[in-house]
Amino acid sequence: MSATIIDGKSFAEGLRGRIATAVEAMKANGVHPGLAVVLVGNDPASEVYVGSKARQTVEVGMRSFEHRLPADVSQQELEALVARLNADPEVDGILVQLPLPAGLDAEPVIAAIHPDKDVDGLTHANAGRLANGAVGLVPCTPLGSMMLIRSVLPDLSGKEAVVVGRSNLVGKPIAQLLLAANATVTVAHSRTRDLPEVCRRADVLVAAVGRPEMIRGDYIKPGAVVIDVGINRIPAPERGEGKTRLVGDVAFQEAKEIAGAITPVPGGVGPMTIACLLANTLTAASLRRGLTPPTF
Amino acid sequence: MSATIIDGKSFAEGLRGRIATAVEAMKANGVHPGLAVVLVGNDPASEVYVGSKARQTVEVGMRSFEHRLPADVSQQELEALVARLNADPEVDGILVQLPLPAGLDAEPVIAAIHPDKDVDGLTHANAGRLANGAVGLVPCTPLGSMMLIRSVLPDLSGKEAVVVGRSNLVGKPIAQLLLAANATVTVAHSRTRDLPEVCRRADVLVAAVGRPEMIRGDYIKPGAVVIDVGINRIPAPERGEGKTRLVGDVAFQEAKEIAGAITPVPGGVGPMTIACLLANTLTAASLRRGLTPPTF
Ligand SMILES: NC(=O)c1ccc[n+]([C@@H]2O[C@H](COP(=O)([O-])OP(=O)(O)OC[C@H]3O[C@@H](n4cnc5c(N)ncnc54)[C@H](OP(=O)(O)O)[C@@H]3O)[C@@H](O)[C@H]2O)c1
Ligand SMILES: NC(=O)c1ccc[n+]([C@@H]2O[C@H](COP(=O)([O-])OP(=O)(O)OC[C@H]3O[C@@H](n4cnc5c(N)ncnc54)[C@H](OP(=O)(O)O)[C@@H]3O)[C@@H](O)[C@H]2O)c1
Repeated sequence: MSATIIDGKSFAEGLRGRIATAVEAMKANGVHPGLAVVLVGNDPASEVYVGSKARQTVEVGMRSFEHRLPADVSQQELEALVARLNADPEVDGILVQLPLPAGLDAEPVIAAIHPDKDVDGLTHANAGRLANGAVGLVPCTPLGSMMLIRSVLPDLSGKEAVVVGRSNLVGKPIAQLLLAANATVTVAHSRTRDLPEVCRRADVLVAAVGRPEMIRGDYIKPGAVVIDVGINRIPAPERGEGKTRLVGDVAFQEAKEIAGAITPVPGGVGPMTIACLLANTLTAASLRRGLTPPTF
Repeated sequence: MSATIIDGKSFAEGLRGRIATAVEAMKANGVHPGLAVVLVGNDPASEVYVGSKARQTVEVGMRSFEHRLPADVSQQELEALVARLNADPEVDGILVQLPLPAGLDAEPVIAAIHPDKDVDGLTHANAGRLANGAVGLVPCTPLGSMMLIRSVLPDLSGKEAVVVGRSNLVGKPIAQLLLAANATVTVAHSRTRDLPEVCRRADVLVAAVGRPEMIRGDYIKPGAVVIDVGINRIPAPERGEGKTRLVGDVAFQEAKEIAGAITPVPGGVGPMTIACLLANTLTAASLRRGLTPPTF
């Protein structure tokens, strides 16, 4: 039996369509949601990423504000920009592209973002709202991962979920979302004693590690839903000298023979992240005005 | 083999002694930590509890400020008191005794407490700091539970921990602390499919459910550390008509034959809660002044 391949690219496309519809409805009510992206320096990967964000923001009908600062901007100036964006009524979401160039400290910059505009969900306030089950803004990749899980397993109640990885950005928020969905949730990490055994318990297995193909086929319970958050670039000499390719944290070829459903890399969780950023911007625009946010 | 009985009463006594020493050192430096407790109405159980807090606060050398409001105080007046305590430089910690009388909404009152004075660790900001691994104030019962765990198992790295219960007050923060201590952590709850089986994986089992003696002996892995947070009052006709007694969430008599170490009820986690409130007040007093908080 070969697993259902969860098509994140197509899911994200559909999601963007639903977002566009919701944006249109908001605009009809006089609200035009806007996302501000702050890019410091000119790291090529960040440039590409910020470019995609801006393009997709405009495509769904929202306003995109791009702020570019030189790599040698002072910490103070960067935080002052965030403060201006906090105060700007046209800005619903603020995203500071990470990592920042050397010499700048990300933590106080994140802390400076108003929690209600923190569309990356990185502030302590939003982590706390998530932990306490309050309404807030949830980090994009975890949010997208949950949507993909629910697309194949709408009812998680009583399921065993295992999350490998415990970063603030990915592992821990996914665990909170799975718990809120009534799964029994285990968080594993580099100190976990018998990782294969722990993973084999999982009806839903989420890998957010950053180690190419470390989750092998025999880590997977037959029929499990496997969500591969990892994005790893590895050498691909078979494609020519010096070539590389992307793989996830899961050994896809082995895993797809055992899992019930699985996300590929690329084309799984990856495309969901920007789409969820747009969803979060819409949520922020709604909450800030006391409106009920649309559900997707 | 019979389990080590973890004596929370004696541990809490020792902790209060260490707190008293730290308070003395602070006072020598001109800082006199103070805890404000707000009691609304006159629920007898709350009266007793607030009385114990005040007494122990003074015993360790800190200032105790007691604020009593009538049960019919308005939401606004209550929040205004919290705002005054936030601004009061003599107040390092603010605790609003819960539950509030009917008609008052606890959530905005908690939200009004400045996170740096939130010695109950209930604000979203502190839940988020805990989730994100930042310095903050941790809810007292979870903090006390961790101290008892560490008293018998100093190194949790790679251990399997299972927390039964996922409340914001107890279950979820304990899970975060265990994860931060490098345990592999599972959170179980009322929707968990096979609770006995899940519990039997645990090297450290924490019960925070509120159901008398529901964790049976055969839920426990031989040698496990068992922390019983539950406090349940049940009828005790053997003590006379209408008499009651306290039991935990764990069937103690069965469990102590299998566990390696176990907390009794009463005399286990219970006494740790107020002691940890005092510890948190000291932490708050230190952090607010940019001092390194003492470790206990
Ligand atoms: N848009 C997207 O799809 C998207 C977004 C974000 C991230 N990602 C990808 O997701 C992956 C994880 O990202 P992240 O930010 O969470 O990474 P991270 O902060 O480096 O966290 C990695 C986690 O994996 C754990 N880990 C490391 N080695 C392990 C091992 N041998 N066994 C078990 N656990 C192990 C670490 O455990 P310790 O805590 O014990 O060190 C840590 O908790 C990366 O590949 C990243 O590129 C993708
Ligand atoms: N100082 C102290 O020692 C101290 C302090 C605080 C609390 N406590 C005691 O600790 C206990 C828990 O307090 P709490 O505030 O966390 O209670 P709570 O908010 O009522 O939460 C109870 C948790 O137990 C879970 N649960 C209920 N029935 C269950 C079942 N049959 N199987 C598995 N899980 C079940 C619930 O699951 P769902 O989420 O699915 O409903 C919930 O997550 C109480 O006895 C309380 O008195 C003691």
